[in-house]
Amino acid sequence: MGRFSFFTHMMAGLLEREPQRGGSAGGESIETMAAALLSGRGEVSGMRLAADILARYGDLDEAQRTAFFGWMARELDVDPGAIIAAAEAYRDGGDVDSYARLADAAEPCRQELLRRLNQAAGATLDLVRMRLDLLRLLPAHPELAALDLDFKHLFRSWFNRGFLVLRPIDWHTPANILEKIVEYEAVHAINDWSDLQRRVMPADRRCFAFFHPAMLEEPLIFVEVALCDGVPDSVQGLLAENRDVLADDDLDTAVFYSISNCQEGLRGISFGNSLIKQVVEELHQELPQLRTFVTLSPVPGLMRHLREQDSDSARKLVAAADAGDRQALGALEGELRAHVARWLVETKRPDGTPADPVARFHLGNGAELHQIHTLADVSPNGMKQSASAMVSYLYDLASVEANHEAFATQNLVVTSKDIRALLPKGKPTGKTKP
Amino acid sequence: MGRFSFFTHMMAGLLEREPQRGGSAGGESIETMAAALLSGRGEVSGMRLAADILARYGDLDEAQRTAFFGWMARELDVDPGAIIAAAEAYRDGGDVDSYARLADAAEPCRQELLRRLNQAAGATLDLVRMRLDLLRLLPAHPELAALDLDFKHLFRSWFNRGFLVLRPIDWHTPANILEKIVEYEAVHAINDWSDLQRRVMPADRRCFAFFHPAMLEEPLIFVEVALCDGVPDSVQGLLAENRDVLADDDLDTAVFYSISNCQEGLRGISFGNSLIKQVVEELHQELPQLRTFVTLSPVPGLMRHLREQDSDSARKLVAAADAGDRQALGALEGELRAHVARWLVETKRPDGTPADPVARFHLGNGAELHQIHTLADVSPNGMKQSASAMVSYLYDLASVEANHEAFATQNLVVTSKDIRALLPKGKPTGKTKP
Amino acid sequence: MGRFSFFTHMMAGLLEREPQRGGSAGGESIETMAAALLSGRGEVSGMRLAADILARYGDLDEAQRTAFFGWMARELDVDPGAIIAAAEAYRDGGDVDSYARLADAAEPCRQELLRRLNQAAGATLDLVRMRLDLLRLLPAHPELAALDLDFKHLFRSWFNRGFLVLRPIDWHTPANILEKIVEYEAVHAINDWSDLQRRVMPADRRCFAFFHPAMLEEPLIFVEVALCDGVPDSVQGLLAENRDVLADDDLDTAVFYSISNCQEGLRGISFGNSLIKQVVEELHQELPQLRTFVTLSPVPGLMRHLREQDSDSARKLVAAADAGDRQALGALEGELRAHVARWLVETKRPDGTPADPVARFHLGNGAELHQIHTLADVSPNGMKQSASAMVSYLYDLASVEANHEAFATQNLVVTSKDIRALLPKGKPTGKTKP
Amino acid sequence: MGRFSFFTHMMAGLLEREPQRGGSAGGESIETMAAALLSGRGEVSGMRLAADILARYGDLDEAQRTAFFGWMARELDVDPGAIIAAAEAYRDGGDVDSYARLADAAEPCRQELLRRLNQAAGATLDLVRMRLDLLRLLPAHPELAALDLDFKHLFRSWFNRGFLVLRPIDWHTPANILEKIVEYEAVHAINDWSDLQRRVMPADRRCFAFFHPAMLEEPLIFVEVALCDGVPDSVQGLLAENRDVLADDDLDTAVFYSISNCQEGLRGISFGNSLIKQVVEELHQELPQLRTFVTLSPVPGLMRHLREQDSDSARKLVAAADAGDRQALGALEGELRAHVARWLVETKRPDGTPADPVARFHLGNGAELHQIHTLADVSPNGMKQSASAMVSYLYDLASVEANHEAFATQNLVVTSKDIRALLPKGKPTGKTKP
Repeated sequence: MGRFSFFTHMMAGLLEREPQRGGSAGGESIETMAAALLSGRGEVSGMRLAADILARYGDLDEAQRTAFFGWMARELDVDPGAIIAAAEAYRDGGDVDSYARLADAAEPCRQELLRRLNQAAGATLDLVRMRLDLLRLLPAHPELAALDLDFKHLFRSWFNRGFLVLRPIDWHTPANILEKIVEYEAVHAINDWSDLQRRVMPADRRCFAFFHPAMLEEPLIFVEVALCDGVPDSVQGLLAENRDVLADDDLDTAVFYSISNCQEGLRGISFGNSLIKQVVEELHQELPQLRTFVTLSPVPGLMRHLREQDSDSARKLVAAADAGDRQALGALEGELRAHVARWLVETKRPDGTPADPVARFHLGNGAELHQIHTLADVSPNGMKQSASAMVSYLYDLASVEANHEAFATQNLVVTSKDIRALLPKGKPTGKTKP
Repeated sequence: MGRFSFFTHMMAGLLEREPQRGGSAGGESIETMAAALLSGRGEVSGMRLAADILARYGDLDEAQRTAFFGWMARELDVDPGAIIAAAEAYRDGGDVDSYARLADAAEPCRQELLRRLNQAAGATLDLVRMRLDLLRLLPAHPELAALDLDFKHLFRSWFNRGFLVLRPIDWHTPANILEKIVEYEAVHAINDWSDLQRRVMPADRRCFAFFHPAMLEEPLIFVEVALCDGVPDSVQGLLAENRDVLADDDLDTAVFYSISNCQEGLRGISFGNSLIKQVVEELHQELPQLRTFVTLSPVPGLMRHLREQDSDSARKLVAAADAGDRQALGALEGELRAHVARWLVETKRPDGTPADPVARFHLGNGAELHQIHTLADVSPNGMKQSASAMVSYLYDLASVEANHEAFATQNLVVTSKDIRALLPKGKPTGKTKP
Repeated sequence: MGRFSFFTHMMAGLLEREPQRGGSAGGESIETMAAALLSGRGEVSGMRLAADILARYGDLDEAQRTAFFGWMARELDVDPGAIIAAAEAYRDGGDVDSYARLADAAEPCRQELLRRLNQAAGATLDLVRMRLDLLRLLPAHPELAALDLDFKHLFRSWFNRGFLVLRPIDWHTPANILEKIVEYEAVHAINDWSDLQRRVMPADRRCFAFFHPAMLEEPLIFVEVALCDGVPDSVQGLLAENRDVLADDDLDTAVFYSISNCQEGLRGISFGNSLIKQVVEELHQELPQLRTFVTLSPVPGLMRHLREQDSDSARKLVAAADAGDRQALGALEGELRAHVARWLVETKRPDGTPADPVARFHLGNGAELHQIHTLADVSPNGMKQSASAMVSYLYDLASVEANHEAFATQNLVVTSKDIRALLPKGKPTGKTKP
Repeated sequence: MGRFSFFTHMMAGLLEREPQRGGSAGGESIETMAAALLSGRGEVSGMRLAADILARYGDLDEAQRTAFFGWMARELDVDPGAIIAAAEAYRDGGDVDSYARLADAAEPCRQELLRRLNQAAGATLDLVRMRLDLLRLLPAHPELAALDLDFKHLFRSWFNRGFLVLRPIDWHTPANILEKIVEYEAVHAINDWSDLQRRVMPADRRCFAFFHPAMLEEPLIFVEVALCDGVPDSVQGLLAENRDVLADDDLDTAVFYSISNCQEGLRGISFGNSLIKQVVEELHQELPQLRTFVTLSPVPGLMRHLREQDSDSARKLVAAADAGDRQALGALEGELRAHVARWLVETKRPDGTPADPVARFHLGNGAELHQIHTLADVSPNGMKQSASAMVSYLYDLASVEANHEAFATQNLVVTSKDIRALLPKGKPTGKTKP
């Protein structure tokens, strides 16, 4: 045993969770093995058995996986009758034993199965990938939906904010992790390693990701930040190859221009809100000269919305965007702004929340609808989805809570004065910051 | 941002989870704050609110903590009526929505409260300590027992084996962690730093602990191991100050002579079984010359048992032990062995398992009752609890599963031939290894 | 001060040697500053002054740097008269004081200047780069050659093998270091990140580098290794994009196919011999199934040699290589082998060592000339320098010392039987392994 | 090869420099082996041979070590005749080749031997310990003094400030390193681990040490710091067991109350000056509220000096101190201060520097003689060496350079006004800060 073994072992323990793959051979079916893991045998040889099951799972084909999920959904479900009996007993008695029996009856065995599978080294990532399979199968197998709820319930507990670690991503990050940033970037594609370098290396660029200690090589979500002198008016300018790097003294604005989830197997577990707020705090601490924290966000539903409008300006905008005609779009700047403002503030889903999903996310986080930028994304995709428009949402930590409250309870969209000015007067759907 | 920031930030992120204590001031009661954390406000400002609540909790006195627990037990309990209704709906409909409503109704809000509290930096340890308070209050407040079940349920999920890290403890371990080893040692007290050094520094001694990534400075459980030439027959010999350190070539036996839980707040979450087995595997890999993995364990209930016996030999043994008379005990060696064997193999609790708790633990893990040692613990405590006797349980990974099975399903105690020979013939309670 | 500060501070201390650039302003010339650093002022404010000088140096233009070097060469040289006087005193007296005075006189002040400059954070790398400037200026400024000797003398002491750290380079290595591997690869260019990935990621490929603790982000030298089933006969095959990765069980040979120095500023400080031998030991320990450790090396001087030969076969080979005609080369395989063998074994420099520099390096390390491969490097460069031939040198740790001895003392080139067979009989220049 | 191998290998490479001890057996003498290491064989098998020599050295007894050192001193010395010839050639020719020959002749082979020995893993620490042996032998073997100069010369180059790492020592530091702090503390002995804890754990205490990357487990020098509210007037008060820890807001003064060298084998290589200044900078950055950086230093030669004085007050002070009579010393406070001031400022060695070694060290670093404290060290040792007096030296980074200059060139002792007032007027030996 080496010197300094505490440190290096700790590192090894955390970083090198080598999946110790058990043999997948043997004649038992995966369902038999899973049942054994849930039984007493699982208590004494759990780690090995769990590793064997995960190895076996890895060898299954799609039909076999579907069958395995079906077995879990069917055989390891709760028994409503037992729950009813236990709930009645608890209602009538109210003592701890009846509570324990109720809790026991109400939790499906498959949750315990997933917890026991997690004993194997490296199993957490395997389980996240297992759910990815499940999500893919769901549309054709609605009977598996309840099983998916159990995965999600467990993952919400395991991937609790308190367990996550925030880490900067930069040019000193190991290549295998950077490779995943390239792969998972969902908003503005990273073309190659030079492009990546431009995003994470310059002194006025930042990237942060959340990691979970049980899968430290897999980012969960990451955000890309440009430190700027004022809010930029175009994402192409922001990502230009030959731009000048700004000096620290010139920086006053942090622009969150891309936020991407990495683990489709964690769908429904929300990390974005926490990530943005923690990054705001980190940057604020590191660079006190930063005054403004905004996004530069897409408006994904705008063009579809415009096509549905029966208005001259909408038709012109659609035509100009379809033609990629920047000049025409420039001439229609005022109309474009007005349409964006109305789309984001006034166009609602049946539940009263904005139809635009990006707006829902940021407004739900307590951000304010801050600025509209035209000719801000002139890429083919930008033209196609939003006639080149982009939007800034402002994260002002002092008001996110009140903003969120107004949005959550009354569906009020908090906007800047500038944006309010673009809307018809007297409408009560938005609230303007003084 | 420094160079190599990825590595040092990762380290900092994992190791330096500084509790960022929010102000505890403000007029709101902790119950109001907790309710807010469960509401929409908690979604947007959860981390800060959680930190504030934990800070506030830290300032509460015993009565206030009891009141807070009482509030959680009462107000955040499940509603049996709602569960019954949801269970009926699921029974009748069986679709995912009714399943979701059932799952929702069946989980008490206080579990979600605990999860949200866990968002704060360093909160996991705070919550473990909160349960410690609760456990202390339980005897006088049985109405809090259900709340404790919820803590335990959550901790079983969070402290899942798959999240733990095994780390060797040695003389290169940071002092703050070694200090805890001294504090938590529950079997053979560590008197001072020299004593500690003798346990962790020599090349023929080992110590291993489990840690959780969210509280890397707090060992959860640890085991102390002596590498020996054969099974030693006395713990005093094993811990002697002036013993010779053995050369690697002379080692053939690993003796687990002490295993201690560190976190009373994790009571009921069992780590010992996993720890022993993983250490067996680690040692086996590092030192293939090791052939035998045994414990040197106390027999805590023996003397009480002997006092209840109406037999000459028992009376003599009690007298000798009470007098600390080693010679007399030596002369009664055969009688002592026989009593120990019968106590461990034949004396049962109403549920059919051994009355001795240490036996229950190791036999439940699939170990075999291997050897009885007399004059093996001649400390005052050893005399008082077991008339100097100690026992070796053998961990033979090839048979633990079958042993466990026999024990779990039929209460069969697997013993070595030597021990079997000490028992009256024809009794069916034990099974002998050939 | 954070928790675990010892660990993270140690990391930070080692990894984050941020150059703390002093202001370069101020009216003093760099020579005045350097003189001050050598005086008492340097003793008390050395770190700051050293940082200022290095900052100032960074701002100098080529002429100013040349002047600064000239000043060091001239003003900080030894004084032969003083040395002679001191040596006479030591010869006559022989006491320690006269020895001290001699040592003092014999060491030029500029060595002490370089040591004092090294006090500044991050200075070691700056000094290596300073020598790079010096080496570039040397051809036009022979008067600086003695100064360069002092740099080299100091670097040999500082970059002593005992201070270096060997580290594997793989896909988990930080991008900034991998980028340097791409940049410094001198033998078989790495085209892009995919090419790099093929060299360092597959389970049957390895890369190792030496680092110095004072510049942990700058590899000093690295070697690329292919683990193979037998000695491969072509570097193109070895580097093919679509090759199959070999299973561990199939590996019996480690092939060192590229070794590159990274720091031109460390020219003349030799790391290659140590690197190869330590990598042989590392691989031997990790994969005991490896039996053979060979290079796959270029024969850089062969074609120039062939052009100078007055022989039919040489002319034909040159013609075929010039034409890139693989078929013709294939037909001339026997002739090519014979020429390579005679070039490497028999063609000598005036000092009796092989004319081929790669041969000198590996034979000087104690390797054996093992195999000749034709059509082994069919790239334009391979054709141009060696008519497609490559050579394997064998590192057999059991015989390197004797081989080296024979080579160093008698210029004997140890060869395999196969190669010996290619040479005219009776010549005493080579020694064959039985 | 594990995941994240770059990181853990780097850690292992730096921290776990396991001495790979070669066999010490074999019939060759250590001198023969050393000669081989200097020859060609050393070039090819240097690491192994170096390890063998160091292992052999470890097995030598005192006489054999003396003989080995004698051999080095005698056989590996420079040849004055050769130096003279080379120096004449360089004087006459001045070309680089003659310079190279001179440098070669002027450096004794034993320096190259030491460098080659350093190739072995962990060798640096072995060489430091080898010099420790040499230093112990020196008084009886003056013929080894020149060899010691060579050790020292090499160590000055290897332990250059630029290679050292500053690390805080606290309660999170590994026990094996803390153990060395206890062992090496030379000023105010650390009695046990509780005492140690009081020095390194409280928030108003700090400890820093320099380490060298080749021996990261061996502190080179460390300083203990108390953060205070004003300059404390007694070291016993400062170290009291039951004192209150000060809040950050109350801290305005950093007191360096103990500085200890750890490696006697590095005698003559000075780290104290750099250490104090870097710690001043670290603390200044961490706690900007600190305004004053002073020592609380012993006055080791005072009592011996007083005994030599022919004065009433001196006799009374000696009597009071010998009797340990604090009250009497209190009554003589004025006389004691005056004697201390004159001892430190006016009592000189033949070279004109202060007779007091602690004063020489701090004044030589550019500190100012700041305050005299009576009844400041009332331990038996404090009474015995300085009649309870202690002294504060002030480190004001803005004036250390000028102070040092005045001290170095004119032997001027810079003092505070308070101290100046204690001295007879008109004496030119000190300079007072306005």
